[in-house]
Amino acid sequence: MAKDFPTRQENYSEWYNVLVKKAELAENSEVRGCMVIRPYGYSIWERMQRVLDDMFKETGHVNAYFPLFIPKSYLSKEADHVEGFAKECAVVTHHRLMANPNGKGLVVDPEAKLEEELIIRPTSETIIWSTYKNWIQSYRDLPILVNQWANVVRWELRTRMFLRTTEFLWQEGHTAHASKEEAVFETRQMLDVYAEFAEKTLGIPVIKGVKTPNERFAGAEDTYCIEAFMQDGKALQAGTSHFLGQNFAKAFDVKFANKENQLEYVWATSWGVSTRLIGALIMSHSDDDGLRLPPVLAPIQVVIVPIYRKEAEKEAVTEKCREVGKMLKAAGIRVKIDEDDKKQPGWKFAEWEMKGVPVRLGMGPRDLAANQVEVARRDLKTKENMSLDGDFIGKINDLLDNIQATLYQQIKDLRDARTYKADTLADFKALLEGENGGFIYAHWDGTTETELKIKELTGATIRCIPLDNPLEEGVCIYSGKPSTQRVLFAKAY
Amino acid sequence: MAKDFPTRQENYSEWYNVLVKKAELAENSEVRGCMVIRPYGYSIWERMQRVLDDMFKETGHVNAYFPLFIPKSYLSKEADHVEGFAKECAVVTHHRLMANPNGKGLVVDPEAKLEEELIIRPTSETIIWSTYKNWIQSYRDLPILVNQWANVVRWELRTRMFLRTTEFLWQEGHTAHASKEEAVFETRQMLDVYAEFAEKTLGIPVIKGVKTPNERFAGAEDTYCIEAFMQDGKALQAGTSHFLGQNFAKAFDVKFANKENQLEYVWATSWGVSTRLIGALIMSHSDDDGLRLPPVLAPIQVVIVPIYRKEAEKEAVTEKCREVGKMLKAAGIRVKIDEDDKKQPGWKFAEWEMKGVPVRLGMGPRDLAANQVEVARRDLKTKENMSLDGDFIGKINDLLDNIQATLYQQIKDLRDARTYKADTLADFKALLEGENGGFIYAHWDGTTETELKIKELTGATIRCIPLDNPLEEGVCIYSGKPSTQRVLFAKAY
Repeated sequence: MAKDFPTRQENYSEWYNVLVKKAELAENSEVRGCMVIRPYGYSIWERMQRVLDDMFKETGHVNAYFPLFIPKSYLSKEADHVEGFAKECAVVTHHRLMANPNGKGLVVDPEAKLEEELIIRPTSETIIWSTYKNWIQSYRDLPILVNQWANVVRWELRTRMFLRTTEFLWQEGHTAHASKEEAVFETRQMLDVYAEFAEKTLGIPVIKGVKTPNERFAGAEDTYCIEAFMQDGKALQAGTSHFLGQNFAKAFDVKFANKENQLEYVWATSWGVSTRLIGALIMSHSDDDGLRLPPVLAPIQVVIVPIYRKEAEKEAVTEKCREVGKMLKAAGIRVKIDEDDKKQPGWKFAEWEMKGVPVRLGMGPRDLAANQVEVARRDLKTKENMSLDGDFIGKINDLLDNIQATLYQQIKDLRDARTYKADTLADFKALLEGENGGFIYAHWDGTTETELKIKELTGATIRCIPLDNPLEEGVCIYSGKPSTQRVLFAKAY
Repeated sequence: MAKDFPTRQENYSEWYNVLVKKAELAENSEVRGCMVIRPYGYSIWERMQRVLDDMFKETGHVNAYFPLFIPKSYLSKEADHVEGFAKECAVVTHHRLMANPNGKGLVVDPEAKLEEELIIRPTSETIIWSTYKNWIQSYRDLPILVNQWANVVRWELRTRMFLRTTEFLWQEGHTAHASKEEAVFETRQMLDVYAEFAEKTLGIPVIKGVKTPNERFAGAEDTYCIEAFMQDGKALQAGTSHFLGQNFAKAFDVKFANKENQLEYVWATSWGVSTRLIGALIMSHSDDDGLRLPPVLAPIQVVIVPIYRKEAEKEAVTEKCREVGKMLKAAGIRVKIDEDDKKQPGWKFAEWEMKGVPVRLGMGPRDLAANQVEVARRDLKTKENMSLDGDFIGKINDLLDNIQATLYQQIKDLRDARTYKADTLADFKALLEGENGGFIYAHWDGTTETELKIKELTGATIRCIPLDNPLEEGVCIYSGKPSTQRVLFAKAY
C-alpha cells in the first residue's frame, strides 16, 4: 500500500479518513466540524434520496419544508427534548454586521440584537408541531404524513466525516395520527422501510430493535432502530423511528375532535436517516483498495475504459466503447465512458477501483477484433473476457445482481462470524476486546444503572433489544439479577 | 367572490396572499420572515427541481454540498461582496444554551461564545471559492461545473411569501474556468437554460438582458437576468447568471498553471433561481378563482372526480374512474383520483380549481353508460364530453399541450399589450401610472445617477438592457443627454 493509505488492519480509522478523501467523497471544510460533500459523494447521497423518497411516497408521504430557525422558547416546551437538544447548538443572536469602527473587517452590530435568540434546528419536532397546531382541528385532518429533506446542526465536540458532523443532511418524517395504534403502526412501518432500504439498496444487513430508555430519542416514548455491523466490529445506528406518544401534542397543545366530537391530543411519530449512511456504506463494503459500491446504489454501475497504444487504434476502440455504452444506457444501466486522454488506462483502473464502480469494462484493439470486452468485477477483483455477441446485456445485469448479493453476503458472513453470546462479564470483555470482537448478546437486568456501568467498564453499549427476540431465562452479566432475554451489546460509532 | 378572497382588480396584493394560503402552497411561520412551504407548494418546487436538475446535468454540471456557515472574515475578502451581503444576515455567536439561573427557560451560555462569528450563508461564493483553492492547481482541474441545492438566509425587512423571505430555497451554480471566454460562455449558457425553463416549463415569457452596474450582483463583472411580466404590470426578476471575472479568485487567491505552466487567476461564474419562481408562477397565470398551473409543471395534471348520488352507483363509477386513471398513468400522465367520500363533487371542483390542476375529469352514472367523461379545462373554464373510445389518451395529451400553450400566450399577449415606448419623462410617468401600466422602453444616458433619479421620481427601475437590443439614437428621458438604445424600465417585485 501507498504510505498515505494504510490498510484496514494497520489503522482502520485512518484508512477510513484517507478513503473518504481519495475517493473524493468529502473533505473537511475550514468551518469547524462541517464537511464539504464533493460531487462524487453527493451523487451517492442523491441516489439514496431518490430511492428513499420513492419509498416514502409509496407509503403515502409527501414532502414539505419548515424553517431552519427555531425560537429558543420552543425548545423548552417539551421537558425531555430540551435536555437532549438545547445543550450544544448554533445560536443566532444578531441580524447584522457592520464595519469595524477601527477600520478592520466586520463586527456584529450591537443594535441588531434579536429579541429572542434563534437556534439552528438540530431536529424539527418543535417547529413542526407548532405548525401542526394550525393544521389540525378534526379527525378529518388526520393523518398528516409529512417528510422533510433538510440540513440540521448539532454542535458536536468530536467530528468525523459523514459519521458525526456539526452540520449534516438528512430527512425527517413527522406524522400526526388520531390513535395510538395508528402511530405505532407508522413507527414500525418506517422502521421496515429503513431496514428494506439498508438491506436491498445499501446491501447492509441490519438488526431491527428497540432502544433502552437510556438511549431513547429525547421526547420519545419508544425509539426503534436499525443497527448495522461495521468491518471493525463496531455497530452503527443506521436509522431511527420514534413513537412520540402525545408528548409533542401536549407541549404544543395540539388537539383534534374525534368522531364523537371529543377533544383528544394527537399521536405522533418521527423518523430519520442522514448522510451518516454514507459512512455506514464505506465501512461495510470497502476494502484496502477503496470503495466498493453496491450496484443498486452506485451512481456509476459500469465504467468503460478504452485501451490503445497508437493514435491509429484510438478512434476504432473509442467508437466501439461508445457503442457498448449506448447499448448499456438504453438498457437502463448507469454507465460512464472514461475518454480522458490525459490519463493512462492503469491510472484509470486504480481510480475507478478507488471509487468503487462495481463493473469495469476494458476494450483494446484485440478485444475489438474478437468482439469482446474484458470484464472486471470490483467486489472479487476477478476478470473475464465476455463476448458482445448473444445476451451481453443480460449477462451484465446478472453480474450486477451477483455483485449486489455478494457484497451483502460478505458483510453478513463477517457479522455472523463475529456475533457472540457471553454469560459472564469476563467472557464479555474477552470477546469484545479480542481481535475478532463484534456483537455480543448478553443478559441484562433492565436497569439504566447497569447499562451505564457496563459501558463504563467495557466501552460497549446496548445497541437495541432486537424485535422478535427469543425469550430465554438468564442472569445479568453485571448484577446477577434475573433476566428474560439477551440484548445486543457492541461498541458503537 | 367570497369576502375573504378579493379579485385581482380589487386588491392584487391581498389576492396573492389569500391565494397562497387557500391553495395550500405556504403560510407564514412564527419565525419572523420565514415561511412554511406546505406539501402542495413543495410538490411544485420538487417538479421545478427535477426539470432544472436534469437541464443542469445535461449541460455537464454535478451537484455538491458546502457548509451552511460562513466565517465572518470570509465576507470581507471581496470588497463589493461585503457591501452587498454583510448588512443583513443571521449571525451565530454562541454554541450552547443553558438553564436560566433564575429557573425560567433557557439562556445563552456566555462561556460558549465562538472565537469567530459564523454567518448563515446569504449566497456561497466565499465558502466555495475558499474550497476551490484546494481543488485547482492546473488547467487539467478545470472547468469545475458545480451546482448546489440549498437554503440561504437574508435578513429582509419586508417579506412576502415566496417573493421575499428571510430563509428561502434555491440552487446556486458556481463554476471555475481557465479562460474569460469560457466563463462568459457559461454565464450566457445558463441564462439560456433559465430562459428555456421559464418559457417551456413555467409557461412564462421572459426578456433576457444584462443589469446596469447599479443592479449588479455584489462582486460580479456582469449580471445577466431574465425578467418576467406579472399580471399587475410589475416585473419580476426570475433568474440571474453572473460573470464574476477573476474577483473571487483574487479574493481567495485561486490560481492555476496554464498549458504554458504560467500561473493565472481562475475565471468564475455563479447563477441561481429560487422558490421565488413559485411567486412568479402564481402572478403570471392565476385568476380570481385560484391557481392555474402549466401542465408541464403541474404535480397533478389530471384530476378525476367520481360523481354519484346513491350508494348503489358509487362502486361502478369509482371503478371506472380508477380504470381511466390507470390508463392515463400508464401513458405517463400525472393523475389523481379524488375518492374522498367526506366531500361533495362541487366542493372538490372548487378545490382543484383553486389548486390549478389543468384538467378535471368528471364521471357520473350517465357518463358511465355513454362511456364518456366530462372534461373541464382550468385555463378557459370550458367543458366538453369526451368519449373514452378511440384515441382518448391522445386527446388528453393534446389538451395538456394546448393548455400549456394557452397559458403562455395569454400572459405574453398581456405583456405585449402593456409594453410601451416613452420619449419624455411625463409620458413615462403617465404610462407607468395608467391603469394598464407595465413595461416601458426608454432612452437612458447610461449613468447610475440618472437611474436612481428616475427611480426616485417614478418608482420604476431599469430591469435590464435587453440582449440583442436594437440600436437607436435618442435622448435620455431624464437628462436629455444622447443615448444609443432604449432600456427596459418597470416597477418590480
